[in-house]
Amino acid sequence: MVAATAQVGVIGLAVMGSNLARNFASRGHTVAVYNRTVARTETFSADFGAHGTFVAAPTLEEFVAALERPRKVIIMVQAGLGTDAVIEQLIPLLEKDDIVVDGGNAHYEDTRRREAALREVGLHFVGAGISGGEEGALKGPSIMPGGSPESYAALGPLLEDISAKVDGEPCCAYMGTDGAGHFVKMVHNGIEYADMQFIAEAYDILTAAGMTAREVSDVFREWNTGDLDSYLIEITSEVLDQEVDGRPLVEVITDQAEQKGTGRWTVQIALELGVPVNTIAESVFARSTSGHTGLREASQGLTGPDRTISTDDRAALVDAVRAALWSSKVVAYAQGLDQIRTASDTYGWDVNISEVARIWRGGCIIRAKLLERIRQEYAGANLATLLAAPSVAAELGNSQDAWRHVVAVATQAGVPVPGFSAALAYYDTVRSERLPASLVQGLRDFFGAHTYTRIDKPGTFHTLWSGDRSEVEI
Amino acid sequence: MVAATAQVGVIGLAVMGSNLARNFASRGHTVAVYNRTVARTETFSADFGAHGTFVAAPTLEEFVAALERPRKVIIMVQAGLGTDAVIEQLIPLLEKDDIVVDGGNAHYEDTRRREAALREVGLHFVGAGISGGEEGALKGPSIMPGGSPESYAALGPLLEDISAKVDGEPCCAYMGTDGAGHFVKMVHNGIEYADMQFIAEAYDILTAAGMTAREVSDVFREWNTGDLDSYLIEITSEVLDQEVDGRPLVEVITDQAEQKGTGRWTVQIALELGVPVNTIAESVFARSTSGHTGLREASQGLTGPDRTISTDDRAALVDAVRAALWSSKVVAYAQGLDQIRTASDTYGWDVNISEVARIWRGGCIIRAKLLERIRQEYAGANLATLLAAPSVAAELGNSQDAWRHVVAVATQAGVPVPGFSAALAYYDTVRSERLPASLVQGLRDFFGAHTYTRIDKPGTFHTLWSGDRSEVEI
Repeated sequence: MVAATAQVGVIGLAVMGSNLARNFASRGHTVAVYNRTVARTETFSADFGAHGTFVAAPTLEEFVAALERPRKVIIMVQAGLGTDAVIEQLIPLLEKDDIVVDGGNAHYEDTRRREAALREVGLHFVGAGISGGEEGALKGPSIMPGGSPESYAALGPLLEDISAKVDGEPCCAYMGTDGAGHFVKMVHNGIEYADMQFIAEAYDILTAAGMTAREVSDVFREWNTGDLDSYLIEITSEVLDQEVDGRPLVEVITDQAEQKGTGRWTVQIALELGVPVNTIAESVFARSTSGHTGLREASQGLTGPDRTISTDDRAALVDAVRAALWSSKVVAYAQGLDQIRTASDTYGWDVNISEVARIWRGGCIIRAKLLERIRQEYAGANLATLLAAPSVAAELGNSQDAWRHVVAVATQAGVPVPGFSAALAYYDTVRSERLPASLVQGLRDFFGAHTYTRIDKPGTFHTLWSGDRSEVEI
Repeated sequence: MVAATAQVGVIGLAVMGSNLARNFASRGHTVAVYNRTVARTETFSADFGAHGTFVAAPTLEEFVAALERPRKVIIMVQAGLGTDAVIEQLIPLLEKDDIVVDGGNAHYEDTRRREAALREVGLHFVGAGISGGEEGALKGPSIMPGGSPESYAALGPLLEDISAKVDGEPCCAYMGTDGAGHFVKMVHNGIEYADMQFIAEAYDILTAAGMTAREVSDVFREWNTGDLDSYLIEITSEVLDQEVDGRPLVEVITDQAEQKGTGRWTVQIALELGVPVNTIAESVFARSTSGHTGLREASQGLTGPDRTISTDDRAALVDAVRAALWSSKVVAYAQGLDQIRTASDTYGWDVNISEVARIWRGGCIIRAKLLERIRQEYAGANLATLLAAPSVAAELGNSQDAWRHVVAVATQAGVPVPGFSAALAYYDTVRSERLPASLVQGLRDFFGAHTYTRIDKPGTFHTLWSGDRSEVEI
């Protein structure tokens, strides 16, 4: 019989699970580890066994027996069927109030399903989004757990302990019931897609203006000292500075961006919820277009400007691009947070947006100075949109001229800016007092008798388009 | 016992089903009709019984008995559960080789599921997209049937008979097996969303340039005599010309566009298939943004230009907007057809794009002169994209300067053009020899060790970013 000495257990010892287990151990916790293929467990023990207190369990039974109650089991296996298989094997081994955590990028609907199933048998299921990549998992990720409040009371302190810290506060907080944590993590990834697309467009514009990769690297390094200060801006400077075989690495890498699916999910679910997230959609589509080789090859002969931007004031252009990047980034955050708020209302999660911004400030891929401002703005007010937060609205007001200029200049030069222009179109759409959507409604009434409402009186109306064109109230 | 005298039967006598039954009868067919609520069947008989030969069946048993074999049953009930319920009731009453047709806007995955289930019991299931609204159903819609080739051999002539005709050819053709027909219809609707969004943007720009609704109506009427000739352009002129209570109707209708779901599906499935359809996505999002009242109200204070476009050459602006509208429309068609082609490859449907364009030329909402050109271009070649069709590429080349000008002018004036700018960004993306997606790949390698390929040699690579920054082959 194995003694129950471990405070937490990790199932799945690929790099993310392995690093998470090491992170727990490095903070003084005893960690049970298990992997389906025993050889991997043995390798883990050989490599890291001396760096902390681990119980390397060869069987799931021994793994479970090694855990203090209520047991805290973190599953770090490939998302999808693997997770269900592990849960099925675990259920008969666990006891009332034990906690099963899925630390992968599960779809929040799967998490909702699993949470309900485990609740049925007296167990807690926690869907915890974990961001920060391999290094984050080892040294301190941002963690977004969702599940029952009781499970967070038991599990939260452990997760907070291994999370990144900003100003002494852990980048981990309770997000809400069932799928809330995985939903928030999914939107985090959607925003990450947009952030990267904007960065790519900024690079593309500056390159079109004649700057070398190294010069653009310097620009990003400079930007990282101001409002744009963020992990992605920082590593962009690093990547652009990198050379290989005497050439800038960025010019050698194949220009086809891949994706693993959370960006696509974000957009699909936003469509389901009716939340406009066009910046994230454009970012996902930009990646799929880049990899659509048949389309690109067939389109090489299309006519257009040669992607050259002439400027006699490069510093001014750089500053305008900075404004466009910052403003577009704010729009992407506004859209992502709108999606979280809408889902929270739909599913009754009661997600605290200020807390979301707070735990995104460190550990995760989109960590940025902007998030501290978002945290503050949402702490004091229940904002309908980030764009309306006073300090944000003011800075957007100052930036919007330059933002327009950049979109216009890139458009005239044939440099595609789907992200910048989508963000600006959203900005101009939401601030418009009157939209041409009225014409769309008129057309729908014409061909489909879909009816319309009027701005000047209540009721639902239809024009007898094929008749005498009088209006009838429905 | 009812005599089997009817060539076709319609279940569901709401306006679409009722009109379809009347259309069959008007071409000399005997039509069995059935509705769950018998009162509706009686009303139908009272209203239209004298206009053709109908068998008004009070029960499903009598309805089935009235049909010549192989029976052809067209279900026109509310999509979703209603369809499954009707199918379940029908199955025990039908016999081998009978054909069940779903004429609603079903999701193609549901159609695939139903087709497989009915095939299992020796029946044919046909998912038939029907476009043209109520009037089309009555006088001649565009019909997109998918299912077994055998079922089309029996059913096709009937459907072709009631469909719209262009140059004597029916706007109905076999689309492919199982879900092909409903898929093509879904994309038709997605393109329709984009068409309407572009029209709304054109109207918005011309209004911002000081034109009245009636003046814009005249512009659309003029456009309808040229390359833009289409049903939606024609009815836009009609809608803009309409007045109510002494004001243009378009200025009285609430500016919140609604949607029924097929546009959203088109985008969700495009994301699943990895096909970029950003114009359709922007159109769906433009509708949801328009109806997002909390967001719009909170954003009214945002700073920006006052949506005024000054021009000393209005005719030139009108012509440039025409070029932007035509070019954007071509991009939306290119994206929709790309999606159909990709799905056809994925599901083995072997959809003939030229035939799709041919049957969209009449009867349906997006019928347009452009479709004849598309039919011709695809008849002769297996195009990777519509943009590369010689006559299309040439006209895009002539239009792209004006298109850019319109996007730039609208952007500077604060008039949102999410559709025009998304279409142009797509155009510039696909024609770019080199995209900044390489930087996205570099960033992904940095934070997630996602690796990259190189343009100058085969293999998969990773830079040791946290190490000595040398490159390793994976």
